[in-house]
Amino acid sequence: MNKSTPRISGQAGLLPGTVIHIGEKKLEKAIITLIDYNEKEFQEKKVESVEKCYPFRDKPTVTWINIDGLHQTEVIEKICNNFKVHPLTIEDIVNTSQRPKMEAFDDYLFIVLKMLTYDRKKKKIDVEQISFILGETYLITFQEKSGDVFENIRDRIRTAKGRVRKMKVDYLVYSLIDAIVDSCFSLLEEIGESIEKTEENLILDPAPDTLMVIKNLKKEMILLRKSVWPLREVLHNLTRAEHSYIHASTEVYLRDVYDHTIQVIDTIESYRDMLSGLLDIYLSSMSHKMNEVMKVLTMIATIFIPLTFIVGVYGMNFEFMPEIKWKWGYFAIWGFMILVFGGMLAYFKRKKWL
Amino acid sequence: MNKSTPRISGQAGLLPGTVIHIGEKKLEKAIITLIDYNEKEFQEKKVESVEKCYPFRDKPTVTWINIDGLHQTEVIEKICNNFKVHPLTIEDIVNTSQRPKMEAFDDYLFIVLKMLTYDRKKKKIDVEQISFILGETYLITFQEKSGDVFENIRDRIRTAKGRVRKMKVDYLVYSLIDAIVDSCFSLLEEIGESIEKTEENLILDPAPDTLMVIKNLKKEMILLRKSVWPLREVLHNLTRAEHSYIHASTEVYLRDVYDHTIQVIDTIESYRDMLSGLLDIYLSSMSHKMNEVMKVLTMIATIFIPLTFIVGVYGMNFEFMPEIKWKWGYFAIWGFMILVFGGMLAYFKRKKWL
Amino acid sequence: MNKSTPRISGQAGLLPGTVIHIGEKKLEKAIITLIDYNEKEFQEKKVESVEKCYPFRDKPTVTWINIDGLHQTEVIEKICNNFKVHPLTIEDIVNTSQRPKMEAFDDYLFIVLKMLTYDRKKKKIDVEQISFILGETYLITFQEKSGDVFENIRDRIRTAKGRVRKMKVDYLVYSLIDAIVDSCFSLLEEIGESIEKTEENLILDPAPDTLMVIKNLKKEMILLRKSVWPLREVLHNLTRAEHSYIHASTEVYLRDVYDHTIQVIDTIESYRDMLSGLLDIYLSSMSHKMNEVMKVLTMIATIFIPLTFIVGVYGMNFEFMPEIKWKWGYFAIWGFMILVFGGMLAYFKRKKWL
Amino acid sequence: MNKSTPRISGQAGLLPGTVIHIGEKKLEKAIITLIDYNEKEFQEKKVESVEKCYPFRDKPTVTWINIDGLHQTEVIEKICNNFKVHPLTIEDIVNTSQRPKMEAFDDYLFIVLKMLTYDRKKKKIDVEQISFILGETYLITFQEKSGDVFENIRDRIRTAKGRVRKMKVDYLVYSLIDAIVDSCFSLLEEIGESIEKTEENLILDPAPDTLMVIKNLKKEMILLRKSVWPLREVLHNLTRAEHSYIHASTEVYLRDVYDHTIQVIDTIESYRDMLSGLLDIYLSSMSHKMNEVMKVLTMIATIFIPLTFIVGVYGMNFEFMPEIKWKWGYFAIWGFMILVFGGMLAYFKRKKWL
Amino acid sequence: MNKSTPRISGQAGLLPGTVIHIGEKKLEKAIITLIDYNEKEFQEKKVESVEKCYPFRDKPTVTWINIDGLHQTEVIEKICNNFKVHPLTIEDIVNTSQRPKMEAFDDYLFIVLKMLTYDRKKKKIDVEQISFILGETYLITFQEKSGDVFENIRDRIRTAKGRVRKMKVDYLVYSLIDAIVDSCFSLLEEIGESIEKTEENLILDPAPDTLMVIKNLKKEMILLRKSVWPLREVLHNLTRAEHSYIHASTEVYLRDVYDHTIQVIDTIESYRDMLSGLLDIYLSSMSHKMNEVMKVLTMIATIFIPLTFIVGVYGMNFEFMPEIKWKWGYFAIWGFMILVFGGMLAYFKRKKWL
Repeated sequence: MNKSTPRISGQAGLLPGTVIHIGEKKLEKAIITLIDYNEKEFQEKKVESVEKCYPFRDKPTVTWINIDGLHQTEVIEKICNNFKVHPLTIEDIVNTSQRPKMEAFDDYLFIVLKMLTYDRKKKKIDVEQISFILGETYLITFQEKSGDVFENIRDRIRTAKGRVRKMKVDYLVYSLIDAIVDSCFSLLEEIGESIEKTEENLILDPAPDTLMVIKNLKKEMILLRKSVWPLREVLHNLTRAEHSYIHASTEVYLRDVYDHTIQVIDTIESYRDMLSGLLDIYLSSMSHKMNEVMKVLTMIATIFIPLTFIVGVYGMNFEFMPEIKWKWGYFAIWGFMILVFGGMLAYFKRKKWL
Repeated sequence: MNKSTPRISGQAGLLPGTVIHIGEKKLEKAIITLIDYNEKEFQEKKVESVEKCYPFRDKPTVTWINIDGLHQTEVIEKICNNFKVHPLTIEDIVNTSQRPKMEAFDDYLFIVLKMLTYDRKKKKIDVEQISFILGETYLITFQEKSGDVFENIRDRIRTAKGRVRKMKVDYLVYSLIDAIVDSCFSLLEEIGESIEKTEENLILDPAPDTLMVIKNLKKEMILLRKSVWPLREVLHNLTRAEHSYIHASTEVYLRDVYDHTIQVIDTIESYRDMLSGLLDIYLSSMSHKMNEVMKVLTMIATIFIPLTFIVGVYGMNFEFMPEIKWKWGYFAIWGFMILVFGGMLAYFKRKKWL
Repeated sequence: MNKSTPRISGQAGLLPGTVIHIGEKKLEKAIITLIDYNEKEFQEKKVESVEKCYPFRDKPTVTWINIDGLHQTEVIEKICNNFKVHPLTIEDIVNTSQRPKMEAFDDYLFIVLKMLTYDRKKKKIDVEQISFILGETYLITFQEKSGDVFENIRDRIRTAKGRVRKMKVDYLVYSLIDAIVDSCFSLLEEIGESIEKTEENLILDPAPDTLMVIKNLKKEMILLRKSVWPLREVLHNLTRAEHSYIHASTEVYLRDVYDHTIQVIDTIESYRDMLSGLLDIYLSSMSHKMNEVMKVLTMIATIFIPLTFIVGVYGMNFEFMPEIKWKWGYFAIWGFMILVFGGMLAYFKRKKWL
Repeated sequence: MNKSTPRISGQAGLLPGTVIHIGEKKLEKAIITLIDYNEKEFQEKKVESVEKCYPFRDKPTVTWINIDGLHQTEVIEKICNNFKVHPLTIEDIVNTSQRPKMEAFDDYLFIVLKMLTYDRKKKKIDVEQISFILGETYLITFQEKSGDVFENIRDRIRTAKGRVRKMKVDYLVYSLIDAIVDSCFSLLEEIGESIEKTEENLILDPAPDTLMVIKNLKKEMILLRKSVWPLREVLHNLTRAEHSYIHASTEVYLRDVYDHTIQVIDTIESYRDMLSGLLDIYLSSMSHKMNEVMKVLTMIATIFIPLTFIVGVYGMNFEFMPEIKWKWGYFAIWGFMILVFGGMLAYFKRKKWL
Repeated sequence: MNKSTPRISGQAGLLPGTVIHIGEKKLEKAIITLIDYNEKEFQEKKVESVEKCYPFRDKPTVTWINIDGLHQTEVIEKICNNFKVHPLTIEDIVNTSQRPKMEAFDDYLFIVLKMLTYDRKKKKIDVEQISFILGETYLITFQEKSGDVFENIRDRIRTAKGRVRKMKVDYLVYSLIDAIVDSCFSLLEEIGESIEKTEENLILDPAPDTLMVIKNLKKEMILLRKSVWPLREVLHNLTRAEHSYIHASTEVYLRDVYDHTIQVIDTIESYRDMLSGLLDIYLSSMSHKMNEVMKVLTMIATIFIPLTFIVGVYGMNFEFMPEIKWKWGYFAIWGFMILVFGGMLAYFKRKKWL
C-alpha cells in the first residue's frame, strides 16, 4: 500500500522546486543513452558525462536522451538547467509519486506517465514513472531504472524501419506513449487470466485464500485505474492543444493511442465489475456451504434425538411398566423406531434436503 | 473472458500501422462480394480477385464491396491501398478487439461496429466486428466471417423495394447500421426471457446453479454494454458532424437509429437493475431456507431434549427413589411429558414457527 | 417483463418506415373523434371515415383529431399521408415500444409520451403510448385504446371554461401533457401507499411474500422511471426551442408542467431510496428472527444437555457407586440439578438473552 | 410518508390556474400583517381586510405583507389579483406540495421555499411551505400557519438595527432566506445528536428498535435533501440572473447564503454516509451476537454430548461387561471424563473461543 | 461528530455581518505577528496592539500579518475595518465552520482553507480553519490557535533562501497553500499505515474492535474529503481568474499545487475504496469463523448422537432382549460403534470438513 502514498511527509513548507528524490532508490548511478538521427544519419551511444549531450540541443536532427535512475539528482539538475527546464518540472521528475499529466511551458512540453509491467515473480504490478521533456528537436526521457518497453522502437530507429526515421521528434514521443499503452494490454491479459482462474477456484472450493486473491486483484485494479485514467486526459490535451511541436500528421496517430487508452479503461471497468461479482459469488457460496452443514446437523439431530428419547423411556426403572414385560416389546419398539426413521426420511425428501 | 481482453500482448512497441490480424481465425479465405447500383441499373457478383473491384472506385453509381474474413491480410491491404485508406485504419480493421468508433479522414469515413447475435446452441452472445469504409460513391464493409444481418437489405436493393435504390451511399450505410441496432432488440428479447425464466426458477428452488446463470447473464450484459454504449457516440457524431457524404435527407434516418440505440441502452440498464435484484432475491431466499432448517432443528431439539432429560431421571439407579415405586408413576410421567410437549407446541404457535 | 422489451425481433433489416403495428392489439377498429373550435364556434363528432378530417387541415380554427387504436395501420397511414407526416414518424406512431421523445419536422412537431394509469384490479401500472402530431392549426393524437385522462379537458372545451377556447393549438397540447403528468401524481400516491403498507407488514411479520412485493414495486419504479425521465427532456426542448407554433404566452405553462415533472422524478427517486431501505430492513429482520430461533435452541440445549449428562451418570450400572446407596442421594442430585438450572438462567440474564 | 406525495390525485386535467388549496388545513382564518418602512418611517399593523393593503402597492417605501394560512383561497386570490400575479403563481402558492423554485415574471419574482423546523415533541421534522412575491417596492409572503423564524428580522426592522431599514426590498428577501437557511443548521445539529446517540446505543446493545431509529433518520434525510437541494439552484439563479430588483450591493449577501446552503448540503451528504455506516455496524454486530450464541451452544454440546455417550455406555444392561464389576471402575470413568472435559477446554482455548 | 455540525443553532435571523466567534475557544488572547520584507529589507516582530500594523497597509513592501486566536473578535474587527474588509468576510473569519472557498472583493481576495494535522495522542485528525485576506501588498492570515505548518516558509523569508524574498505577495500566498496541501500528504501516510495495520489485524483475528477502527477511519475520510474537495475549486478559480494580484509567473506554481490537490483527492478516493473492501473482508471472515464453529458442532453432534442412541437401546429394561445375554454382545456393540465412528470420519473427509 505504501506504493500509493506519496512520500513527502515531514516536508510541508519545503522550498518549491527543491530537487529531492522521492521514491525507492532503484539504481546506483544514472545511465545516460543518446540516440541522434534524421532520415539519413544515425548514431547511438552511452554517454559518460552529461555535458556531452549539450551540443545536441540545437542540432536540427532528432535527439533522444534517455536517463535511467533518478537518484543522482545533480545529473538531472545539470541537464535540465542546460535545456532551460523550469525548477518545478525538475522537482516533478525526481518525485516518483506524480499523477500522469501534461504541462506546456514556453520552451518545451512536460509529460509524466506511468509505465506498468507485470512482475511474474512477485505476482504484482510494477509501476515505474517516466517523464518526457519534449523540445523542438530533442526528447529527454527519465526512467527510475533500466529496462523498459521501448526496445522495439530503438530497433526500428536503428534499422530505419517504418516511418520513425522520416518523421520529427513528435512522432518519436507518440511511438513511446503507444508502446506504454500497448504494454497495458498484456498486463490486462495477465490479470484477466488471474480473474478467470480465481473464478474457477471459487466454484470448486471457496476458501478464505480466494478472498485474499480477490482483494489483491481489486487493489491492483485501483492502482491500474489511478495510472491509466489521467492518461486519457493527457492524450486528449495533446491531441487538441495546438503545440507547434505536434504536427498535423502525428495527430491521427495520437488519436489512435487515445482510442487504445479508452479501450484499456473500458477493460479495467469491466474487470472491476467482474471482481465485484466474484465477491458476491464467494459470499453466497460460503452461505451455501453453511446451509449444507446445517442440513446435515439438522437431519442427524432430527432423526436421532426422538429415537434416543424413545429408548430413554424404556430405560426408566419404574416398577410398574407393562410394556417391559411383553414378550415382543423389544421388537415392537424396534419396529416403531424404524417407522419414525422412515417418516423422517420421507419428510426430508419432501423438503428437498436429500 | 478472453473475448474481452484484446490480444496484443507481447507486441508493445510494434510498428504502428502493422497489419497483423488479431482475433480468432474464423474463415480460411476472404470472400469478396460486389453490389453496384443506381436507380436504374443493378449488378451483384462474387469477385475472385480484389483487382476487379478497382474500376468501381470512381464510378458514379453506388458500390458496396463486402469482404468476409480478415485472416488474409494481404487482400485487405491491397484493396485498402487502392482506395487510399490510411495504414492505421487498416490496422484497426484487422484487429478485432476494437471499440466501436467513427473517424473522419480526408477521403473517407471509417466506422467500426460490433454485430451481436445470440448463439442459441452455445447459449451465449456472439460478437463479430464489422468495419465500414465510406467514400463518396462506395462503401467497403469488412466482416470476420460470412453470415450477417443484412440479407433483408440486399433483397431490397435487388428488388428495388423501398428508398434504397433511389438514394446515395449514405442511406446504404444507415440501412446497415439500422439492421445492426435492430438485431440488438431480438438479442435483448432472448436475454429478457432468460431473466424471466431464472426469476421463476429462483422462486421455485434457489440452487447454486441459478447463481451461475445470473453471473453469466451479468457478464453478457457487461459485454453488451461495452458494444452498444460507444455506438451512441458514433451515431451522435454521424448526425451532428457535417460530412459531405451525409446528406441532409439521411439525417432524419440517422436520428431514428440514434433513438433506437438509446432505447437499447435503456433496456440494458433496466436488465442490469433486474439482475442485481435477482441476486438479492437469491441471497435472501438462501437465508430464508436456512431459517427454515434452523427452525426444524430447534423445534425437534427443544421438544425432545427436555423429555429425554425426564426419562433420564427415572433411569437413575438410586436405591431410594419414591416415585419409582408408585403404582401410577409410569403413567403419571407420561402425562407430564405430554403436557410438556403440548406446552412446547403452544409456544411455537405463539412464535409463529408453525 | 416482456413489457419492457421492444418487440421488433426477427425484423433486423426491415424497410425503414415500414408501418407495422408493434404491441398488443388492444382495440379492433380505430375510433376517430374530431373536435374543432375557436373562441366562438365549437363542434365535436365521431368520424366514420378518415377522409372527412381532411378539410379541417387548413381551416384556421383549432382542430383536434383523436384516434384510438393503432391496429388498423391503413387508417393511420391515410391520415398521416394527407397531413404530410414523414414515414419514419408513422412507423414510430404504430410501434408502441417508443421512448418518450420530441422531434421537430418542417411542417409539424412530433411528440411521443407514455400515459400511465394504475390498474387496481391487476395491481400494476398500465402503460399506454400516446403520440402527438402538432401542426399550425391542428393536433392529431394517437392512443392504443379508448379511455384516457383527457375528459376534463374535453369538458372545458365544450363549456368554454378556462382559457383553452381563447388560445391556440399549443395551449391544447400543453393541457394534454399537463393532464398526463398530473395523472402520475395519483399513481405515485397509490405506490406510496403500497410502500407504506409493505413497511408495516415488514415490521409485523417479515415473510418471503413481502420480498416479492418489494421486488414488484421495484420493477414498477424501473418502468415508471423509464417513462418519466425522458419526459423531462421533451418538455425542456419544448420550452427552450423556438418553434413558431409555441407562443410565448404558452411557455410559462410549459415551464409549470416541467416543474411538475421534476417533482414526479424527485418522488420516484425518493421511493427508490425507500424501497432499497425496505430490503435492508427485510434482510436484517430475517437475521434477527434467526437470532431469536438460535437463542431458544441454545438455551434449551445449554440447560438440558448437562442435566441429561448428570442423570446419565447415575444410570450407570457399576456395582460400586457409593452415592447410589445414600439415603438422600436422589434428593441431593435434584438439588444439584436445580442449582445448575438456576445458574444457567442467571448466565442468560447477564447475557441479556432473556 | 404521505407528506412526500403531492396530493393532487384525481385531478388530472384540472383547469390550470385553478386555486384549490392542497395540503392540510392548518389555520382557520388567514392572518394578514403589514410592515411598511423606509429609513425614517415605520409602521406595523394587523390588517382585517385585504383591501387595506392595496394602497401600499405603489408607495415607494418597502412594504412587507405577510399572510398566515392558505385555506381562505378567496383572500389570496383577491390580493394576488390586485398585485397582478399570474394565475399559475396563485395555484402554486396554495398548493403546498411545491418543489422549491424561483420564477421570473414581468412584474415580480416568485420564490417558493420550504421552512424546516424540528418538532421536539413528535421527534420529527416539520415542513412548512413559504412563498414570496417580490415586486419593486413590496414583498408578499404566504405561510401555511402562524409562527416562523423571522422574529429576529422583524425586531431589527422595528428598532432600525443593522442595515435592513436603509436597504431596499431585495435586502429584506435576502434576510428572510438567510433566516430559513440558518434554521437548517440547528435542525442538522438535532439530527447530528440523534445520530450520535443512536451510534452509542448500537455499540451498547444492538436491538431492532435501533434499526427503526436509523430508518426514520434516513427518511428524514431524504425529506431534508428534497427541500434543500433545489434551494441551491434557486439561490444560484437569484445571484446570477440580472433582475432589476436585485441590486448589486445585495448580491454579495446572496452569495453568502448560497455558501451556507452548500454547507447544509455537504452536512446532509455526510450524515447520509454516516447513517449507511450505522446500518453496516448494526448488521455486523447482529452477526457477531449470533456468533457468540453459536459458540456457547457449540461448547456446551461439544463437551457434554461425548460425556453423555460415555455414561450411556455404562448404562447398558449387557450381562457380560467386565468394567462394571471392577472396584474402581466408577472412579476410573470419572477420571476419564474429567480428562475429556479438560481436553475440550484446551481445544477451545487454542481456537480462541474462550 | 459535533465537529462537522456548524454551531450556529438558535441564531436564525441574526444580523448578517454580526461578528460572533463560532467554534471552540482555543486561545485566550490573540497573538499578532508581523513580517515585512522585500528583496533587501526584512523585519519580523510580535505586535502588541493592532494599531501598529496600520502603517504597513500602504507600504510597497510585502507585509504578512498573522493573527493566532479568533476569540478576541474586537481585535479582528479593528484590523479588518482598517483594511476595509467587508462585514460578511469578518463574520466568515470568526465562524470556524466555513467550507473552504475563495471570494473576490474589490480591494482584496478572501480565501478560507482548512489546515489538517494528525494528532498522534488522540489518534484523530485535527482541523484548524485558516483565512487569508490578500491585498495588493499585504497578506493577513487568521488562525484558530498558535502552531502551524508554515515554519519552513518563515525560515526561508528570514534567510532569503529561495525565490520568496524576490517575489510579490501572491507568491507568499502560494507558498502557504502549498505547505497546507503538503501537510495532507503526511496525514494520508498516517492513515495509510492505519489501514494497513487494520488489514493485518483483520486477517489475524477479526474482532468487533476492528470494525470500530474501520468505522473511525471512514469517518475521518469523510472529514478529510469535506476539507479537501472544495480546495480543488478554490485553486482552480485562483489559477483561472484574472486577478491583478496574481502575476503570470505565479500561475505555474498554483497549477502545481492544484496538481498536488488532485493527487490528495485521488488518494482519498483510493482509501475509501480500500476501507469498503476491509468491511467486506471483515464480514466474510466473521461468516467464515461462524462456519468453522458450526462445523465443529455438527461433527461432534453427528458422531455422538447416533452412538448415544445405540447405547441407549441397550440401556432399555425389556425383559426379553436376546443380545443382552450373548457373551460377546458388549464387545460386538463396541465394534459396531467404532465402525459408525470411522464411517462418519470418512464422510467428513469426503466433504472436506477435516
